[in-house]
Amino acid sequence: MTAIPPIEPPARLLMGPGPISAYPSVLRAMSSTLVGQYDPFMTQAMNETQELYRQVWSTANDATMLIDGTSRAGIEAALVSLIRPGDRVLVPVFGRFGHLLAEIAERALAEVHTIEVPWGQVVPVSQIEEAVVRVKPTLLALVQGDTSTTMNQPLDEVGAICAKHGVLFYADATASIAGNEFLADEWGLDAATAGLQKCLGGPSGSAPITLSERAVQVIRSRTRVEAGIREAGDESASDFIRSNYFDLGMILDYWGSRRLNHHTEATSMLYAARECAAVLLREGLDNAIERHRVAGAAMLAGVQALGLEVFGDVAHKMNNVVAVVIPDTVPGDAARADLLDDFGIEIGTSFGPLHGKVWRIGTMGYNARKDTVLTTLAALEAVLRRHGASVPVGGGVEAAADVFRASALPLGSAS
Amino acid sequence: MTAIPPIEPPARLLMGPGPISAYPSVLRAMSSTLVGQYDPFMTQAMNETQELYRQVWSTANDATMLIDGTSRAGIEAALVSLIRPGDRVLVPVFGRFGHLLAEIAERALAEVHTIEVPWGQVVPVSQIEEAVVRVKPTLLALVQGDTSTTMNQPLDEVGAICAKHGVLFYADATASIAGNEFLADEWGLDAATAGLQKCLGGPSGSAPITLSERAVQVIRSRTRVEAGIREAGDESASDFIRSNYFDLGMILDYWGSRRLNHHTEATSMLYAARECAAVLLREGLDNAIERHRVAGAAMLAGVQALGLEVFGDVAHKMNNVVAVVIPDTVPGDAARADLLDDFGIEIGTSFGPLHGKVWRIGTMGYNARKDTVLTTLAALEAVLRRHGASVPVGGGVEAAADVFRASALPLGSAS
Repeated sequence: MTAIPPIEPPARLLMGPGPISAYPSVLRAMSSTLVGQYDPFMTQAMNETQELYRQVWSTANDATMLIDGTSRAGIEAALVSLIRPGDRVLVPVFGRFGHLLAEIAERALAEVHTIEVPWGQVVPVSQIEEAVVRVKPTLLALVQGDTSTTMNQPLDEVGAICAKHGVLFYADATASIAGNEFLADEWGLDAATAGLQKCLGGPSGSAPITLSERAVQVIRSRTRVEAGIREAGDESASDFIRSNYFDLGMILDYWGSRRLNHHTEATSMLYAARECAAVLLREGLDNAIERHRVAGAAMLAGVQALGLEVFGDVAHKMNNVVAVVIPDTVPGDAARADLLDDFGIEIGTSFGPLHGKVWRIGTMGYNARKDTVLTTLAALEAVLRRHGASVPVGGGVEAAADVFRASALPLGSAS
Repeated sequence: MTAIPPIEPPARLLMGPGPISAYPSVLRAMSSTLVGQYDPFMTQAMNETQELYRQVWSTANDATMLIDGTSRAGIEAALVSLIRPGDRVLVPVFGRFGHLLAEIAERALAEVHTIEVPWGQVVPVSQIEEAVVRVKPTLLALVQGDTSTTMNQPLDEVGAICAKHGVLFYADATASIAGNEFLADEWGLDAATAGLQKCLGGPSGSAPITLSERAVQVIRSRTRVEAGIREAGDESASDFIRSNYFDLGMILDYWGSRRLNHHTEATSMLYAARECAAVLLREGLDNAIERHRVAGAAMLAGVQALGLEVFGDVAHKMNNVVAVVIPDTVPGDAARADLLDDFGIEIGTSFGPLHGKVWRIGTMGYNARKDTVLTTLAALEAVLRRHGASVPVGGGVEAAADVFRASALPLGSAS
C-alpha cells in the first residue's frame, strides 16, 4: 500500500495569459455527482449547454457543442473535419497560434499558404483579401486573439470577403471569447472554437465549437459511421475524415437528437463548461466584455505608470492581456519567480521571438477584477524595486485605480 | 441577463457498464484550485501522476502519462502515432470495441485485417498467432475488456507472440484496468490506454497511456516540431504523425523534462486522474481487483438466483460487468426506466446485435461494494415482478450476500 495524500494546490492568483483561476462556482460544479451518459438529466444538460454557448458565440447555429479535449482539440476537430487532403488553406499569421493553425492544417495534408506580419501587429484586412484572391483557398483559418503577442485580429470584415470568394471561414477564439466581442453569425463565421481556460474562467479540457450550416454540409458529405454501430441506411464516404475522435459528423450525431454513441461525454468537464457559460450570461455578455475592457485598461495604465514599455500595437490589443517589455536591468525569470514565490501571483513570459523579452499579464474571467489588478501592480512594483529598477512609488496602483474610478462599473469583484 | 441555476444532478447509483459513480475523493479533487501549467506544483503533480500510473499499469515505462480527452482519445493517440499510412494492422474482434480499433486504424490509413469470434466469446490465442503469421502486421491491436459483451480477452500469451514476430502490441484496457489484472511489462505490451470512467472510479475525460521504449522509438522517428516553437536542432520527419493533438512525441516532450508546450494540460482532469490512481493504490491494486472479483461474483450469483440467464462465456467475463439476457416477457427499456426513475439506479443495455437483448450490470470502482450490489438486486427483483416475471422472493439478494459472506473482504464499503 502507498500513502498518497489528496491533492492540495497552493493558493495562486493566476494573472498570466491563461490558464487563469477559475470561477468558484465552476470549481463547485465540477465536484457534482456523475450521471449516466443517456440519463435524461445528462442529455438535458447537454442541450442546455448548447443553448448557452449559442449565446456565448452570438449565433443561431444548431451545431454548437463541446469537443472533449483542450482548446487545441477544438482547433484540430474543426480543421481535420473541414479540410480534405490537398485543399488549399490560407492562414494569416501574427503570432504563435497562427503557426499552430498552419501546422494543424499541414498535418491534415492541406496545401497551406501563410501571410505574416511582424509580431505585435494585426493583419490588415486588405492583405487578407489580396491573399484570398491570389491563393483561392477552400478555407481561411484565422486566430482572433493571439496571446503570444496579445493582438486582437479584427474579424468583422473578413466574413464578407470569404463569402464573396466562396471560402470557408474558421476562427480560433480561445484567448478572446467572452473578454472581447465575437459575433459568429454577424461576422460570417463557418466554424469557431475556443477553450475554457481564458476569459470563460474554467479549467482547460473542454473546447466549445460552433459550425454554420455550410460547414455542417461539408462535414456531412464526408460521413463515415463506424462498423460496430453501423445500421442499415448509414452510408460512408470514401473521402472520410482522417480522425474518428475529431469527426464532427459523429460528434454532431452524439449531441443531436439521434444520440448515436461516439465518445463517452466528459461529464465533469461538461458541468464546468455549462457553468462557465452560465456565469458569463448571468453577468451579461456585454457587461462581462466591458469588465474585461476596464480591467485591461487599468492594467495597461498601471504598467505604463510604473514606467514599463508595452509591446505591440496597443490599439489592437485584446482586453484581457498585456505584454510588458522586461526592463534591460531586470532578470525576467527571477522577477516572475519572486512574484510567484513571495506573492502567490503568476504572470507569464512568451514564446519564440518574445521568449524572455516580455512578460504577459492577464486580466481574464474571474480575475478581471479591481482587487486582482491592484494587487498585481503593487506586487510588481515591489519586485521591480527589489531587482534594482527605478519605479514611481505607488504610481501603478493609483493609475489603475483611477481607471476603475472613472468606469461605470461597480468597484467590487465579479459575481 | 439570463437566470441559469447551478447544475444540480439527481442522486444516481450508476450500475451500468460505465460511466459509474466517481469516488467522492475524486469529485473533491476536481474542485481544487487551479495553478499555472508551469507552476512547480503542477509539474510535480504531473510527475506524481506518471509515477502512480506506472503502478496502475504494472510497468517501468518512463513514457506513462495522460491524454487530454476521453478513452477514445487515448486509443486514437496510440494508433495514429504508431501506424504509418499503409501499415498492416491486425485487430482480433470480439465485440464493439474491436470494431472501434479497426475503424480508428482505418482512419489512420492502415491496411486493417480483422479476425472475429462470435460476441460472448474471447479469441483463442492460437487464432491470434495464426493470423499474426498470415497477415504479418506491423501492429496488433486488441481490446482487453469489451463492455459490449463483458468478455475479458486473455493477454498474457499475446506479447510473446508479438515479440517473436516483431509486431508492436497495443491493448485497450479502458473497461478492465483496475478491476482485472493488467501487467503491461510482464505481458509485453508496447502501448496501452484506458479511461477513468470504469474501475478507476473517475469521470470520463482523461486517458492514461503507457508506451514501451520500442513504441517510443517508432514515435520519435516520426517527430515533427511545430513552427511556432521550433528551435535550431529540432528536426522534422517527412513521415510525420497525421495529428498534432495526438502526436505522442510532442506530448512526451510536454510531460518530460523538456516541458515543451503542446496543449495546456487539463488541470482539473489531471487532479481527478491522480486521485483515481491514489484511491486505487491506497487500497492496494491486488485488493481492489479482489474487491471487483468478489462484487462481480456476487452480482453474477444474484442475477442467476433471480432465474436470469447470463450472456456469454462466464469463465471469461470481466470481474466488473455482467450481461443478463432480458426475459422474453419483460420490456427491457421500460424495466430499465423503472429502475432509474423509481430507484435512482442505472443499468445499461448494449450495442449492435445485443441491443435490447441484454442488460449490462456493472460493479466498478467506487460501486464495487456490497451495499450497491444488494440494493441493485433488490430493486431489480421488484421491477421484474412489476413487469410480470416470476422471480424467487429474496433469492438474488441472499445469493449475493452469501458470496460476500464467504469472501475474506470486510463487508463494508470501499475506502
